[in-house]
Amino acid sequence: MIGKLIENIKKKQAPVMVGLDPTMKLVPEHIKQKAFAEYGETLRGAAEAVWIYNKGIVDAVYDLVPAVKPQIAMYEQFGVEGVAVYHKTVEYCKQKGLVVVGDIKRGDIGSTSEAYAVGHLGQVQIGSARCRGFDEDFATVNPYLGSDGVKPFIEVCKQEKKGLFILVKTSNPSSGEFQDRLVLPDGCTDASKARPLYELVGEQVARWGADHMGQEYSYIGAVVGATYPEMGRVLREIMPKSYILVPAYGAQGGKGADLVHFFNKDGLGAIISSSRGIIGAYQQEKYGKYGEQNYADAARAAVVDMREDIAQALR
Amino acid sequence: MIGKLIENIKKKQAPVMVGLDPTMKLVPEHIKQKAFAEYGETLRGAAEAVWIYNKGIVDAVYDLVPAVKPQIAMYEQFGVEGVAVYHKTVEYCKQKGLVVVGDIKRGDIGSTSEAYAVGHLGQVQIGSARCRGFDEDFATVNPYLGSDGVKPFIEVCKQEKKGLFILVKTSNPSSGEFQDRLVLPDGCTDASKARPLYELVGEQVARWGADHMGQEYSYIGAVVGATYPEMGRVLREIMPKSYILVPAYGAQGGKGADLVHFFNKDGLGAIISSSRGIIGAYQQEKYGKYGEQNYADAARAAVVDMREDIAQALR
Repeated sequence: MIGKLIENIKKKQAPVMVGLDPTMKLVPEHIKQKAFAEYGETLRGAAEAVWIYNKGIVDAVYDLVPAVKPQIAMYEQFGVEGVAVYHKTVEYCKQKGLVVVGDIKRGDIGSTSEAYAVGHLGQVQIGSARCRGFDEDFATVNPYLGSDGVKPFIEVCKQEKKGLFILVKTSNPSSGEFQDRLVLPDGCTDASKARPLYELVGEQVARWGADHMGQEYSYIGAVVGATYPEMGRVLREIMPKSYILVPAYGAQGGKGADLVHFFNKDGLGAIISSSRGIIGAYQQEKYGKYGEQNYADAARAAVVDMREDIAQALR
Repeated sequence: MIGKLIENIKKKQAPVMVGLDPTMKLVPEHIKQKAFAEYGETLRGAAEAVWIYNKGIVDAVYDLVPAVKPQIAMYEQFGVEGVAVYHKTVEYCKQKGLVVVGDIKRGDIGSTSEAYAVGHLGQVQIGSARCRGFDEDFATVNPYLGSDGVKPFIEVCKQEKKGLFILVKTSNPSSGEFQDRLVLPDGCTDASKARPLYELVGEQVARWGADHMGQEYSYIGAVVGATYPEMGRVLREIMPKSYILVPAYGAQGGKGADLVHFFNKDGLGAIISSSRGIIGAYQQEKYGKYGEQNYADAARAAVVDMREDIAQALR
């Protein structure tokens, strides 16, 4: 799947993905009204509204981007109905030829991670049958539980030719609270040798990556927030063969010019993600002329601008 | 809800919870056959089997335990159908008077954690209505993203009188890979002052806890694995007002005698969780006499033994 992702990136000339992170505040009024008229102001009504909204955006941008990243939390907020629309969205995006990164940030003890891995990326044995649950192409994984919480995901990826992006340095303001802590290397008592935790996690991702290669790149990638470009530069060197998923372009503050060092010299190795900046473009002054009715056209215009911003930075 | 949990623990004289972590290998054949006959060897069939299995266990043990802890991964492995049974299980357990700890280990950037918090513990605004998604009483949370990934959960708990158990030291063999790393305190260059990361996380949990108190205990608790009793002793002192959820009793190796130091002198402050050791008791030699048909009676017998083991250790 890392091969398909890179092929898609090359074909569309855009190392860019759209985060499908719907909230009720982002869904245009006319869509909500229609869904609520049919299903009421209920979880079902909200889920239906999200589905119509998502479909509009995907139809408007699928030819411009290689991948999408639905954030499952935004669906879980609407309970089981929301989770059903998450699945429907994953399926629809795959039909459109998009690579789907499930932003699920799961991670648990071994046997539990295995269940997540099977449910999201693999097949579960049911009697004599093998069935697929959510079936994303990639998933994001939280490494706090260490190797035995990550390896079941890697195993399933190996079998299924899928991939992971493991959290190394997240984009949020307080990510440094634990991730930036200065850690002594094993057995070392020299404080001057201490290094931030995220670098150690990055090194572990690089090791996992080296053992699980596609052609040019590994199918075990990393998440490093666009909001920390200097750390991105260091992590790029630590994990030369890992694709880096870079969230937080746009709404959270990242800009194309800041992101050059997330890429390798081959122009590959990173994919930049924007969520609200694209799917909520119609609410921004810059794209206000499109109006709420044409939210999908606004999203397309925002993708065109994002592609250009990043292409220019990479030139 | 921490008040209700403590009240339940006192009433049932058992600081014990049952992990509802179903897998196809644990569900008895006769239940699978019936479910597959109706729905086929499908996600729906598996979900139905899990539901019947869960209901049997809950009916058999609800009078003996204060709380249950369904592990959502075990439901997500069966896709949307599985998630629907997770929700049904949560609802059923609450009807039985049980406190429900959703073992979801979520955690993300602020706005995303807010969606998880709202979906699992709170209410989501849909038009003029407010709706509940999964509606567990407590949830487990992963702290790797730092304060702004945890605070939205705390806010919802405050509004809804619910609670959290934040991962501090997990029960799995490789939990030390990052959690035990020796970390320099802020601005300190003396390597002898370095302390394990889990202690720093524990201190942060204690601070959050102190700001969010029920009566005797905080509604912001911690997860510390039964497999690390010595660390449990230290963390007990670091977080005197936090309830500690102690997973991995039984199947993963914890024993009652090892767990005394997770408790405070009032005999409170900890709740021990066992999953496979209870729900899969019928597969163990010790409870084999019950047979597969009577898996729920075997689970009840295992709960009785677990209660006694812990009561004896606390005497």
